[in-house]
Amino acid sequence: MRKNGFYLALAASFVLAGIAHYTHFGDIAEFAISCVAILFVAGFLGRATESVAHYAGQRMGGFLNATFGNAAELIIAIFLVKEGLYDMVKASLTGAIIGNLLLVLGLSILLGGLKFKEQRYNIQVAGHNATLMLMAVIGLFVPAVFVGVENFSVEKDTLLSLTVAGILIIAYILWLVFSMITHKDTLADQELPPAVHEEEPVWSKRTSIIFLVLATVMVALVSEWLVGTLETFSLQFGLSELFLGAFVIAIVGNAAEHSAAVIMAMKNKIGAAVEIAIGSSLQIALFVAPVLIFVSALFGRTMDIVFTPIELTAIGVSVFIAKSISRDGSTNWYEGALLLMVYVILGFAFYLV
Amino acid sequence: MRKNGFYLALAASFVLAGIAHYTHFGDIAEFAISCVAILFVAGFLGRATESVAHYAGQRMGGFLNATFGNAAELIIAIFLVKEGLYDMVKASLTGAIIGNLLLVLGLSILLGGLKFKEQRYNIQVAGHNATLMLMAVIGLFVPAVFVGVENFSVEKDTLLSLTVAGILIIAYILWLVFSMITHKDTLADQELPPAVHEEEPVWSKRTSIIFLVLATVMVALVSEWLVGTLETFSLQFGLSELFLGAFVIAIVGNAAEHSAAVIMAMKNKIGAAVEIAIGSSLQIALFVAPVLIFVSALFGRTMDIVFTPIELTAIGVSVFIAKSISRDGSTNWYEGALLLMVYVILGFAFYLV
Amino acid sequence: MRKNGFYLALAASFVLAGIAHYTHFGDIAEFAISCVAILFVAGFLGRATESVAHYAGQRMGGFLNATFGNAAELIIAIFLVKEGLYDMVKASLTGAIIGNLLLVLGLSILLGGLKFKEQRYNIQVAGHNATLMLMAVIGLFVPAVFVGVENFSVEKDTLLSLTVAGILIIAYILWLVFSMITHKDTLADQELPPAVHEEEPVWSKRTSIIFLVLATVMVALVSEWLVGTLETFSLQFGLSELFLGAFVIAIVGNAAEHSAAVIMAMKNKIGAAVEIAIGSSLQIALFVAPVLIFVSALFGRTMDIVFTPIELTAIGVSVFIAKSISRDGSTNWYEGALLLMVYVILGFAFYLV
Repeated sequence: MRKNGFYLALAASFVLAGIAHYTHFGDIAEFAISCVAILFVAGFLGRATESVAHYAGQRMGGFLNATFGNAAELIIAIFLVKEGLYDMVKASLTGAIIGNLLLVLGLSILLGGLKFKEQRYNIQVAGHNATLMLMAVIGLFVPAVFVGVENFSVEKDTLLSLTVAGILIIAYILWLVFSMITHKDTLADQELPPAVHEEEPVWSKRTSIIFLVLATVMVALVSEWLVGTLETFSLQFGLSELFLGAFVIAIVGNAAEHSAAVIMAMKNKIGAAVEIAIGSSLQIALFVAPVLIFVSALFGRTMDIVFTPIELTAIGVSVFIAKSISRDGSTNWYEGALLLMVYVILGFAFYLV
Repeated sequence: MRKNGFYLALAASFVLAGIAHYTHFGDIAEFAISCVAILFVAGFLGRATESVAHYAGQRMGGFLNATFGNAAELIIAIFLVKEGLYDMVKASLTGAIIGNLLLVLGLSILLGGLKFKEQRYNIQVAGHNATLMLMAVIGLFVPAVFVGVENFSVEKDTLLSLTVAGILIIAYILWLVFSMITHKDTLADQELPPAVHEEEPVWSKRTSIIFLVLATVMVALVSEWLVGTLETFSLQFGLSELFLGAFVIAIVGNAAEHSAAVIMAMKNKIGAAVEIAIGSSLQIALFVAPVLIFVSALFGRTMDIVFTPIELTAIGVSVFIAKSISRDGSTNWYEGALLLMVYVILGFAFYLV
Repeated sequence: MRKNGFYLALAASFVLAGIAHYTHFGDIAEFAISCVAILFVAGFLGRATESVAHYAGQRMGGFLNATFGNAAELIIAIFLVKEGLYDMVKASLTGAIIGNLLLVLGLSILLGGLKFKEQRYNIQVAGHNATLMLMAVIGLFVPAVFVGVENFSVEKDTLLSLTVAGILIIAYILWLVFSMITHKDTLADQELPPAVHEEEPVWSKRTSIIFLVLATVMVALVSEWLVGTLETFSLQFGLSELFLGAFVIAIVGNAAEHSAAVIMAMKNKIGAAVEIAIGSSLQIALFVAPVLIFVSALFGRTMDIVFTPIELTAIGVSVFIAKSISRDGSTNWYEGALLLMVYVILGFAFYLV
């Protein structure tokens, strides 16, 4: 019953968003309808990913969950890169990273913690996550300092950006090799795909794969419609591109992670919730962002990897508080509340810019 | 015998300081006498707090100890805010934070460590303290970056300062809820008020409360007299307001914490000493400083929460070294010596400014 | 057989480097020959140190290993200080610190990790190392901020530099007191000098000491010849002094640590490898650098302790990633790979400057 309602709303909002876009309802109407539609297509993508994960095995499932969960961010960002809106790309990457580390993780820990006094997960995975978060911060921070302090030329800036991007991608691929091949068993317990054990899959293997492809295409389409409305929209509401990219787009684009992580936390699977939230932000910093650098190079003008000081501050602050809270392998409601409070501070500061 | 001497000195120095102030002995004489007097009234406040803690129970006692221990700082700062000396307020808050984290904690760990080879305390409390210290740094660091980098107008600065101050106060209140209500038993062993178990209280319940009120009033009065002499004094000795606020006032104002924490450490209760030192600096960053922002707004002109780069450096450095040393739940004399050496480096650097 | 080859190559390269220097072969030839020669004399110094360590006992051996291993750096740096090449001194100190923390440690962990799935060592030593690394960062960071932000005069800069240098030396000496006297037994297992237990010493006690002195003199001579060629060399190859100092000189100067640490790691003694790499970088930051400040003062013009923003960034980044990886007392190949990737990022960024 509830499920049929979901698919009805999915179809209706998707079709309506398409009509709104192609018959030019006006930017605000298009924006609003697309925002609603993306919540449903992101949810659909999440379900399809989970179902495929059931058949493909737990480890590969975890990888697919992270990868398809970030599909919306990547696709939105490619459209922005194509239009040369580099500042908004970086703002939306920043927003996705801090949104996952503060909002998704914070909400999961808070709501899980209100139900369970203390939630525990594997401390070794927590340590690796912390080091990878630091690697991501270093990859973004070093180019910013060198380009800023030494006044690098555009050529040097491009060269350094491509090099750092390449190294971050290698670091991410080696991480997959490490966690899925050489040290597969050591980290095994923590990489369960969400909710696989308890629920029977709704779809067959074949249907799951078809739906996964379909959902990804739908996310791509709605994302494109959404991006088209952003500039006018930001003017109408007096919102800066920065705030729009870092908070509005990021919250919408992370809808899949939000729902999955919170559900896991409330089932007392805080390890899975931490994996989704931190794993997703790591994928954005170590894979999505560097890939976009290379994509922009293919489009003819290389986007550099230099984020603004306030973006770096937001990312650095989020990484340090998330590291401090996640590292001991134990969470409680207060730690979730702290993450959300840091998110509110950063959100308000970005809103004022 | 020793106790009677204390009360005699308390009464004498307090009366003399009052006479010096109202009959205008001259700033240097007034300053010197007030400094002596504040040591005694702070000690009196400490004893009264401990005695009340004995009757009110351990947890509430810990809270009272922290709160009344910071009464001097808050009262001094309110007088400074009233006079519009915002720079000195921030310097004295900085000094109180780093004084507790480096001088009070360092001296306790050093002296405790010279007596006992290794001193241990609860590692879970250490983890929460570390996260809260980071929260405090974030609360002070984010506004400084945004206001500085984005050249915020005074209106935006005020708005951001009030918002961050409000969130920090909420974080502090929720911490009290967490540590005293929802997770009271989990953290129970570490929140002993100092020395309650072994020593019989000197005063009755009624006397204790009266003395607590009396001591707070005395601290308020001496603090006011002291502040009145500062500007002339700093000119006379060629000390900058910054050094005066961050080191001279802070050391004087933390007298209560100093004596209590060192005594605890030398009784091998390093957990209590860590709680006093770190708990006090957390209260200043998460409660006293934000409250002063709102107090200044009531006085008509809002003090912003933007600290100077060197103040933020001092606070950040202190938090990171204190985190690194306290986090493993074990201390030794060398760690105390390191904290004191960082304090000397910062003190000398501030002196040169 | 292999050993005779080594001594032949040692003698040949040393003599050739001497001839090249005194008969003026030309800078590039001199540079190339000296580079080869320093690899052999560093290796000779390493063997002599190990052999002396065998007779002098494990703890004193560890101290000698660290101290003589850094002899090359100190001697090169004194020649640079004498010539007033302060920027290159600081670059080479930076390079020695990050070279040990990233290249030496990274290579050891990677190669050890390819052979053994997980390598473990004492977690308490790891914690002390982390705190000491932080102390080193604070000692370099605080003067840079104060001098930069507050526009200190040369006098104040000199005064602050000498004070901080003095405190860092005290911190280092107290660390020796702590780890070798008061807490000798607590940290005992981790301070084994490399390879002492398994291999019989080649030389007698007397020969070992003579060779140690001889090797130190040889390192001093070759270092001086090498430094003489650097300026022309950097012009010829278009390398900046910074890159030369931080990477070329540092890699050459750390040859002794490189070979020793990697050999230890591949014998599954990762604790010894970590001690050599981190211990060496700590000695440079807390002892060699401060001593050079005082040496420059003896030469008449005090070198300040203010490193450039990009040097501080490189040191800070290296310390934080090394701390994050070493702190849990367990290493694997991926962590080694991460350290090396950070080294490549920094190396390329310095190359572009």
